[in-house]
Amino acid sequence: MAHAPTTTLSRRHEAVRRAMAEQALDALIVTALPNILYLTNFGGTSAIVVLTHERLQFVTDARYTTAVSETIGTPHECPGLEPVRVGGSYDAALAGLLGSLPPGRIGFEGAHLSFSRHQWLSAHVDGARHALVPSEGIVERLRAVKDPYEIALLAEGGRRLSKAAADVLASEVRVGRSERELALAIDTAVRRAGFERAAFDTIVASGPHAALPHARPGKRILSEGDLVLLDFGGVYDSYCVDLTRTVSMGRPSDRARQVHAAVLAARDRAIEVAGPGVSRFAVDAAARGALAGADMGDAFGHGTGHGLGIDVHELPRVGQRRPDVDTRDEWLAAGMVFTIEPGAYFPGWGGVRIEDDVVVTASGVDLLTDVTTDLLEL
Amino acid sequence: MAHAPTTTLSRRHEAVRRAMAEQALDALIVTALPNILYLTNFGGTSAIVVLTHERLQFVTDARYTTAVSETIGTPHECPGLEPVRVGGSYDAALAGLLGSLPPGRIGFEGAHLSFSRHQWLSAHVDGARHALVPSEGIVERLRAVKDPYEIALLAEGGRRLSKAAADVLASEVRVGRSERELALAIDTAVRRAGFERAAFDTIVASGPHAALPHARPGKRILSEGDLVLLDFGGVYDSYCVDLTRTVSMGRPSDRARQVHAAVLAARDRAIEVAGPGVSRFAVDAAARGALAGADMGDAFGHGTGHGLGIDVHELPRVGQRRPDVDTRDEWLAAGMVFTIEPGAYFPGWGGVRIEDDVVVTASGVDLLTDVTTDLLEL
Repeated sequence: MAHAPTTTLSRRHEAVRRAMAEQALDALIVTALPNILYLTNFGGTSAIVVLTHERLQFVTDARYTTAVSETIGTPHECPGLEPVRVGGSYDAALAGLLGSLPPGRIGFEGAHLSFSRHQWLSAHVDGARHALVPSEGIVERLRAVKDPYEIALLAEGGRRLSKAAADVLASEVRVGRSERELALAIDTAVRRAGFERAAFDTIVASGPHAALPHARPGKRILSEGDLVLLDFGGVYDSYCVDLTRTVSMGRPSDRARQVHAAVLAARDRAIEVAGPGVSRFAVDAAARGALAGADMGDAFGHGTGHGLGIDVHELPRVGQRRPDVDTRDEWLAAGMVFTIEPGAYFPGWGGVRIEDDVVVTASGVDLLTDVTTDLLEL
Repeated sequence: MAHAPTTTLSRRHEAVRRAMAEQALDALIVTALPNILYLTNFGGTSAIVVLTHERLQFVTDARYTTAVSETIGTPHECPGLEPVRVGGSYDAALAGLLGSLPPGRIGFEGAHLSFSRHQWLSAHVDGARHALVPSEGIVERLRAVKDPYEIALLAEGGRRLSKAAADVLASEVRVGRSERELALAIDTAVRRAGFERAAFDTIVASGPHAALPHARPGKRILSEGDLVLLDFGGVYDSYCVDLTRTVSMGRPSDRARQVHAAVLAARDRAIEVAGPGVSRFAVDAAARGALAGADMGDAFGHGTGHGLGIDVHELPRVGQRRPDVDTRDEWLAAGMVFTIEPGAYFPGWGGVRIEDDVVVTASGVDLLTDVTTDLLEL
């Protein structure tokens, strides 16, 4: 369960209904669970929402009916929620529900309904009464701009994650520990800091392992002279925050200092550039340009950042423009929350990444995370 | 990364190709990540596999290219893997790759390709040369019957999870701790037992909370007289195991004893009935009948079990027959691995669930988990 106030949920419903009206949709089937959580506070693993301009029908099964009914009457109850209990399959329940709607155009989430489910549903909907119409990202685009409730949560998440990071850096990172042991210590610190769970599998990548941007912690022992990349996050009341620091075990080599300085400059430059009305591609270009200026452009093989919220990767995507995909939503807006995380990776040698979370303000960005960016010698 | 031996991967590729031949498919696009892991040992978060009768092309992006190339030459390299690097989007890379295939019928996973991606792909494939054909569960049905490599892994996972459970029951469950603290202690024990991560969010549900089958651990303090439901699992070398026990804080009430005894009888009965050639619906009916016999039929609102493997919920589904969905794959076969987890839930009072993992043998099932099923008084 999430805990958005009922009035916040009402505003979100209104915003979805406005988007539905723009596309002449009489109803919208919401099948993506993060979108369902955003609209209802429901955090379980199975549900479907059908929103019309007047109603919100909520389909779930016996495992969750008690949990849903217990939210009724609380300050975070979902306004207008009508529970619909699944008997057989979800699809059958959905088809039954759609059949009872007045004739009209029924939108569905094209990115979150499988080919097979769409085919089944098409066969079970009365085409004379209802047209099934694909829609793209109606709820996701709303989610990209956080409301004050969400910004407060993400800020609190950022504070707690920063505190956990400071504790880990002060007392857990030392020569002789394995990557795996350190990853467990980080996850424990994150949980003790009040997070429900890790936002993703914690990365502890030491020495040459740090050349793999998505390395898994293994048996390798942290050793004198290693750079160690630590990337971890937490889910705080359903919202994700994410942080990366790269530290040195003992004195760093000149090359380690140079790579760290170049990545830090790229991070600083991206933060400097980011703000409302700025292109997300420009933020990526700022980080990329800084690394290219240090002759490390080829070492940065991923995007500069990703939106944070109910999903640990959501809109906006802060990366290079992909001509075949990125045809819209170029501009950053106040209330967007995302990571800035340039890196440089050298197979066989290692790598550096530095990641912070920011929220777009009226004039630039504020940092949500606050941990030293110096190259620590531990 | 998973670590199936190269020969095991070869056998899986052959089995998929036989299924492709039966459906007259010249190629199969695999987009479900668990299916990709099953076929290649790749454990990252973004990839597409295109299998033909001669080739296996593997599409991934820069974050993973080093990790993939490092498996080459190891005993668990993926045979025949041809890396294809994504430049722009995955879909564009896939469309380019498909265009280079000889004319023919190209299957895709209907349940794992979204409506939108299918639409895009249809528009970018040369219909005169290639037909896009939906397929259902080709890889999932193979995955339902585990090979010896997988059974050995799941057995080791079951042993480790049982040991962790015994430790937790002996030293972590006590009056005065919060659900959340106990959940963290369980997750730490699971990680220390050698698991990569929890298989799902650990459930610690005390007193009335245990009436919610999927409760989240909260601030409630374990108190004298509570029943406490503990449901947790781990991922061991990419494979999931899962266990539930319900214990009593101090002396249980008569009702608690009765409910526990009825659920245990249901578990025992399902284990007795299960075996090769037995209907999965019959296993569910056995558990359900035992609870109905104790007048608790209505208190058991979920299925009896689910398959375990790369996914924590996979085939076979051991539940009631759903006429609109369950039209095939009724019979259990040797090598299938699944949970048996009947429960009884009473809103306002609490609940009991007991869950073990079994593998189907030539003559019945073997338990993979081994923890006392007595109603412990802690």
